[in-house]
Amino acid sequence: MVTVAVDAMGGDNAPDEIVKGCLKALGESPEVNILLVGKEEILQEKLSGTDYDGKRMKIVNASEVIETGDSPVASVQKKKDSSLVVGMKLVRNNEADAFVSAGSSGAVLVGGQVIVGRLKGVERAPFATLIPTDSKTGVCLLLDCGANVDARADHLRQFAQMGSIYMEHVVGISNPRVAIVNIGLEEEKGNALVKEAIPLLKDAKNINFTGSIESREIPHNGADVVVCEAFTGNVIIKLYEGVSSFMLHTIKKSMFTDLRSKIGGFLLKPALKKSMQEFDASKYGGAPLLGLKGLVVKTHGNSKSSEICNAILQCMTFKENKINEYISGALENGT
Amino acid sequence: MVTVAVDAMGGDNAPDEIVKGCLKALGESPEVNILLVGKEEILQEKLSGTDYDGKRMKIVNASEVIETGDSPVASVQKKKDSSLVVGMKLVRNNEADAFVSAGSSGAVLVGGQVIVGRLKGVERAPFATLIPTDSKTGVCLLLDCGANVDARADHLRQFAQMGSIYMEHVVGISNPRVAIVNIGLEEEKGNALVKEAIPLLKDAKNINFTGSIESREIPHNGADVVVCEAFTGNVIIKLYEGVSSFMLHTIKKSMFTDLRSKIGGFLLKPALKKSMQEFDASKYGGAPLLGLKGLVVKTHGNSKSSEICNAILQCMTFKENKINEYISGALENGT
Repeated sequence: MVTVAVDAMGGDNAPDEIVKGCLKALGESPEVNILLVGKEEILQEKLSGTDYDGKRMKIVNASEVIETGDSPVASVQKKKDSSLVVGMKLVRNNEADAFVSAGSSGAVLVGGQVIVGRLKGVERAPFATLIPTDSKTGVCLLLDCGANVDARADHLRQFAQMGSIYMEHVVGISNPRVAIVNIGLEEEKGNALVKEAIPLLKDAKNINFTGSIESREIPHNGADVVVCEAFTGNVIIKLYEGVSSFMLHTIKKSMFTDLRSKIGGFLLKPALKKSMQEFDASKYGGAPLLGLKGLVVKTHGNSKSSEICNAILQCMTFKENKINEYISGALENGT
Repeated sequence: MVTVAVDAMGGDNAPDEIVKGCLKALGESPEVNILLVGKEEILQEKLSGTDYDGKRMKIVNASEVIETGDSPVASVQKKKDSSLVVGMKLVRNNEADAFVSAGSSGAVLVGGQVIVGRLKGVERAPFATLIPTDSKTGVCLLLDCGANVDARADHLRQFAQMGSIYMEHVVGISNPRVAIVNIGLEEEKGNALVKEAIPLLKDAKNINFTGSIESREIPHNGADVVVCEAFTGNVIIKLYEGVSSFMLHTIKKSMFTDLRSKIGGFLLKPALKKSMQEFDASKYGGAPLLGLKGLVVKTHGNSKSSEICNAILQCMTFKENKINEYISGALENGT
């Protein structure tokens, strides 16, 4: 059994969609238990009338909420009875294996490092996100997506190692190809950080480093693990969303230009809808913060129940496949 | 009249598509003269049989070619009779107003700075590219797209000023909104460079700085001028291409899943094709290197005749609207 603590108060759709997502996860897998962390009174009300199994899901009271505008560091330090802090402490004290939150990224990041803590040998914990590609598995892993801006070259090497373990043992790609985001493929290309990181990646043990990748090739199966510092990673992940929603909007517009297009659009719609599900980030269930003693997963701020459910199920895969044991083995004695 | 020197030997489709593009530009505007720079014998052969006006287009011989694999600095220094070096010297000596090349970005960049030279007060010359958005004009200007990795904060301020002038006087947007690429909108967000640049942008004269922009909002009319250092800019521009081609591929695939979708796809095709032209970067005619004494424009390495033609026509707008005079006025006495 895997026990997942869930931040019932974090995100735009809390607590309703969070509670629904938890109920869904309980229904989908008999192997998961849930600790629903938040304001007890509200949560009890939300759960009244549902026939959830009280042995498998328990409410853990937390009287405070960290808001989007709060300073991450200050709120984690001061709001000791917030759902985020209480949930992370459950992980630290081994009462839960994982913590899922749709709340403030900054607070999740700070709490992950300060409360849960990093595994021995891990210098920085990166956010790792699966993004859609035209590869056979349909995804590659991008890290760091937002945790460590101004990371150093040796951090990137650790990201590559942790990302390889994730892709191999969670997604099932053997010997995953690792590449670093760069502005060209030639040796002399890159900014100072990338130029410093490339030799370290070449020398790193246990990874299949294939060199630089231009962002154009990320959607086209250019690599299985794509490494960069968090500023670049965040730009990539958000531009993915922006360009795909822009294109979708343009396509929809073209379906209404005249009668012929309207009929064509009507006929094409079911197939198109199915294809577009490939771009639905929610099915991957959020971004784990890799390298912590326990698992912390951040989902979108606007997560609906399905993303929360998928994030909870992802925690099971993570735990069952012993990702942290592999990361410890790879990193605790240096490279 | 505007005189444009064109690198007949640069890019994947040289010299055929370059020559065609020049002929097209001559046909489209009576206000442009062209100096076609490259191997005279080859170019004469390509032009034989066409009825081009010898008064408006002249061949300027250059016996060498800078290849993609050549080191930018070394090739500009050593290949003194290359089409790129000869073409840029025409601009430096005021025999041409502008130079267009589909050749090596690195060599264009080095040649631009070393041969043509920067305007007084300009510290770095950025590549500026119009990218598609859902705004009324259909574009925003992204700079720097690839010239100055590891730029400093005060360079970003100058990029913002030059980009504003371009959008105001070339694209015709009065008081264009300027934003800096960032990973969030809150004051504390950003890497060291962005945090240092924001106060400089706030204090900069003659720009309408609106703060940070997340990459998700770039396609959704979040700003008219989007400023970043060249590593980020290059990632953005190439990911735009990658994600849109990936989506287009996915849409096409969905058009062949069953008979219903095939008919739908057939009916929708004309409207879709028209909408997709919005994503065709070639219509904007390449990326100018802003801030030089004269104009240098880099087009895609795989440019076809239409992109070359559009780049030549863009040079006319640039010259006629006195962009360099505005840039000099704004930058030569500091901020």
